[in-house]
Amino acid sequence: MSQSDVTPVDAAEIGSWDETADVVVVGFGAAGSTAAFSASEAGAEVLVTERSGGPGGAAALAEGIVYLGGGTPIQRACGFEDSLDDMYRYMMAACGPDPDEPKIARYCAESLGHFDWLVAQGVPFDPSFCADTSMAPTGTEGLVYSGGEDAWPFNEIARPAPRGHLAKTKRATGWLLMQHLAAAAAGAGAKVSTDTRVDRLVLDDARVVGVQAQRFGQTVSLRARRGVVLTAGGFIFNDDMLRRHCPPLARGTFKVGTEGDDGRGIRMAQAVGAAVRNMYAGEVSLPITPPRTLIHGILVNAQGQRFINEDTYMGRVGQTALYEQDGEVYLIVDEASYEVNWMGLAATWVCETAERLESEMGLPGGSLAATVDLYNRHAARGEDPLFHKGPAWVRPLVPPLGAVDLRLGRAPYAPFTLGGLDTSVEGEVLDLDGRPIPGLFAAGRATAGVCAFGYASGLSIGDSTMFGRFAGASAARSPAAG
Amino acid sequence: MSQSDVTPVDAAEIGSWDETADVVVVGFGAAGSTAAFSASEAGAEVLVTERSGGPGGAAALAEGIVYLGGGTPIQRACGFEDSLDDMYRYMMAACGPDPDEPKIARYCAESLGHFDWLVAQGVPFDPSFCADTSMAPTGTEGLVYSGGEDAWPFNEIARPAPRGHLAKTKRATGWLLMQHLAAAAAGAGAKVSTDTRVDRLVLDDARVVGVQAQRFGQTVSLRARRGVVLTAGGFIFNDDMLRRHCPPLARGTFKVGTEGDDGRGIRMAQAVGAAVRNMYAGEVSLPITPPRTLIHGILVNAQGQRFINEDTYMGRVGQTALYEQDGEVYLIVDEASYEVNWMGLAATWVCETAERLESEMGLPGGSLAATVDLYNRHAARGEDPLFHKGPAWVRPLVPPLGAVDLRLGRAPYAPFTLGGLDTSVEGEVLDLDGRPIPGLFAAGRATAGVCAFGYASGLSIGDSTMFGRFAGASAARSPAAG
Repeated sequence: MSQSDVTPVDAAEIGSWDETADVVVVGFGAAGSTAAFSASEAGAEVLVTERSGGPGGAAALAEGIVYLGGGTPIQRACGFEDSLDDMYRYMMAACGPDPDEPKIARYCAESLGHFDWLVAQGVPFDPSFCADTSMAPTGTEGLVYSGGEDAWPFNEIARPAPRGHLAKTKRATGWLLMQHLAAAAAGAGAKVSTDTRVDRLVLDDARVVGVQAQRFGQTVSLRARRGVVLTAGGFIFNDDMLRRHCPPLARGTFKVGTEGDDGRGIRMAQAVGAAVRNMYAGEVSLPITPPRTLIHGILVNAQGQRFINEDTYMGRVGQTALYEQDGEVYLIVDEASYEVNWMGLAATWVCETAERLESEMGLPGGSLAATVDLYNRHAARGEDPLFHKGPAWVRPLVPPLGAVDLRLGRAPYAPFTLGGLDTSVEGEVLDLDGRPIPGLFAAGRATAGVCAFGYASGLSIGDSTMFGRFAGASAARSPAAG
Repeated sequence: MSQSDVTPVDAAEIGSWDETADVVVVGFGAAGSTAAFSASEAGAEVLVTERSGGPGGAAALAEGIVYLGGGTPIQRACGFEDSLDDMYRYMMAACGPDPDEPKIARYCAESLGHFDWLVAQGVPFDPSFCADTSMAPTGTEGLVYSGGEDAWPFNEIARPAPRGHLAKTKRATGWLLMQHLAAAAAGAGAKVSTDTRVDRLVLDDARVVGVQAQRFGQTVSLRARRGVVLTAGGFIFNDDMLRRHCPPLARGTFKVGTEGDDGRGIRMAQAVGAAVRNMYAGEVSLPITPPRTLIHGILVNAQGQRFINEDTYMGRVGQTALYEQDGEVYLIVDEASYEVNWMGLAATWVCETAERLESEMGLPGGSLAATVDLYNRHAARGEDPLFHKGPAWVRPLVPPLGAVDLRLGRAPYAPFTLGGLDTSVEGEVLDLDGRPIPGLFAAGRATAGVCAFGYASGLSIGDSTMFGRFAGASAARSPAAG
């Protein structure tokens, strides 16, 4: 056991506080910057601690999609109708099973206001739509489909609309978003202490009244008169926690996040009685598209069987491939649908017939041939009764056929964790009885957010920035400790 | 939030203790009775509390299989060779992913001794083998295959041997086992307090020194000089915990356990800093066999595809069906393989052809026909290259074909939880840093045992009774609180 101590410190043991603020925010990423802003705006004296040398967290490294809907100015400018009700129905279906309904309801209700808030902080959004990707476009388009809203089963549950909003810059846009949010926090008056790694919470009786941290080799005690907001990230960089809670994620090949995502924030809160939920859940990116033409192909598993509609969100494909197919999947394409994908993933095998291809791939004899035959029979009528891929993507595969090797180790499986602290919609950290722990708040990937297991791109930054705001405001209005 | 309070009580708040013992054991089931016995044997004064009116817990309602191997007298009498190494290799593969290796190593090392111990407590085992079931036989046979040891992939990982041992009585044998174990605990001197529901732990500084309980409408405080052993069961009867940690199990139709399996023991320990692991894991019984002849059939999902080797342990079928196939599965049989199963599950549809059958069942056109065709082509050579069902069970299906409806709601899915408190092999409850919590021990389904996710029948009672013994002994030798 190499984990370090998260047992809380008794306030009586603190000789003198090194710094004092109304609100101490732990972590300066998407959730921390918005928490710091809103707490400052509410009149609180705010100290943000960040273990690395600067702001940004995982969000600054990310594509930067923010999931928002209900008819944002960008959606409307691009000609998409959307309603909060459709957004709600999509999220209740896509974020499950058993998602946190009060959080989703609040998330939808605040969606338009949150867009305006981001714009007010200076985040630029280009009113243009990119159809070719569910990730960040290569251009500066501000809107993408990011969760399979236009594919089965969600297109039957809610009217589809793209809800992935991106700051106006090319490719990974998270850095630009975070630049504005970090500046907003500082502009609102939050003080920032970088290179400061919070290790423990400080308890006075049952109330959280501060933190202990390491700063330049010294232990410092930081007092929080009104509250501590934990926004210290998830636990994808803690292999021990992965093995205990979500073993499939331990096998991922490219961890999404920063090394600060070591679960320490979650564990510090657990050590003062906080409850966790959905600890098994994780998102797994398996970047097959763009180009979208590859969706004309079929995904098959180690038995040569299809297992999902290929036109769904690639994050759903990645989750299913890692959690249920043990990372043993392939994409089968024909010449008309084939292109080398954006990451350089190319066909490993090309053969004149499905029988020959399955043999080269080492799949069971006849398995892939039977799958292609059945697929083609339905595809000739533009149908996919097995997995409901949309008619636009369904046409018979014409030999020769190629296979892109998407097995674990050959293709990148990029996971991050979705489970974490149980929090109220106001950002209060809840104990095992569901009661708020006095003085303790949290947001971002340290918490179990709107996604119980299912995911859409943009929901991490979306719920981090929105519930970060609420958590910061809650901490600011929390009564000062005696 | 309807859960009740699990916050620990400060010892300073206890005016006077109603009872005092060296060791207080919470729960009088498989783990509690063995903990009480071993603590008593070690010279401790033991008080066992039980919230129901008598001993037995979930084990008394169960089939009563105890998973033991390495060449027990029963295995040898039945002509089976087994080694501890084979048992270890099987368990490391079957209990994963990422099972608790130290626990499995210890479990195997103590297996033969634990068998002798059970016999010494008077538990009778009949030296006879039943081949027709992986559950409790209808006769009094004492040995069954209970975890798919003789099926793929485990038959390639370790030499197969049956390790499911049953006390000598018909059908559900758990009551007989528990009768002997409860008597052993009482015989060793443990005092029993029934109708006593423990609600909270009592803490003196950071050490557990007792419990508070409800007994006949009164709050009583029970002091434990040396330690408290939590053996209060799992959480299958707590829907809120199921939804937070393992949503698939919330859909199960027949909960396995007692109403006392409400997770309170787990939550009480978490409230004093205990770590949990594997909270997503659950076993799901889907009782298809006996008769084993049904294994000649094929299991298919909502896409008419096979998804598992039908000759594996039925608990693996149930887990896969509920967790990965959303409870949408069917058994396809022909006349030669068909019998109404032991629970009365019968074919809902019977048709002259696979095409007709898939149509009646509402499966995608051609899907079941393609599956049967591919299966039959390989079966004609006695092979199953897709899922590796053993040759003895592989032969072409000859129309007419029938389908047994095994969907959730039509067939019983009987789950129980496998996740719980993180404990050492000695039964110490570990905190978030992996350090023992002074004065607190646990065993049984309140803990994460040898099964991280995979399961074999007999491993719950096996690890409950074995690690219950260790936990009781650990508590007895723990230094008395000052």
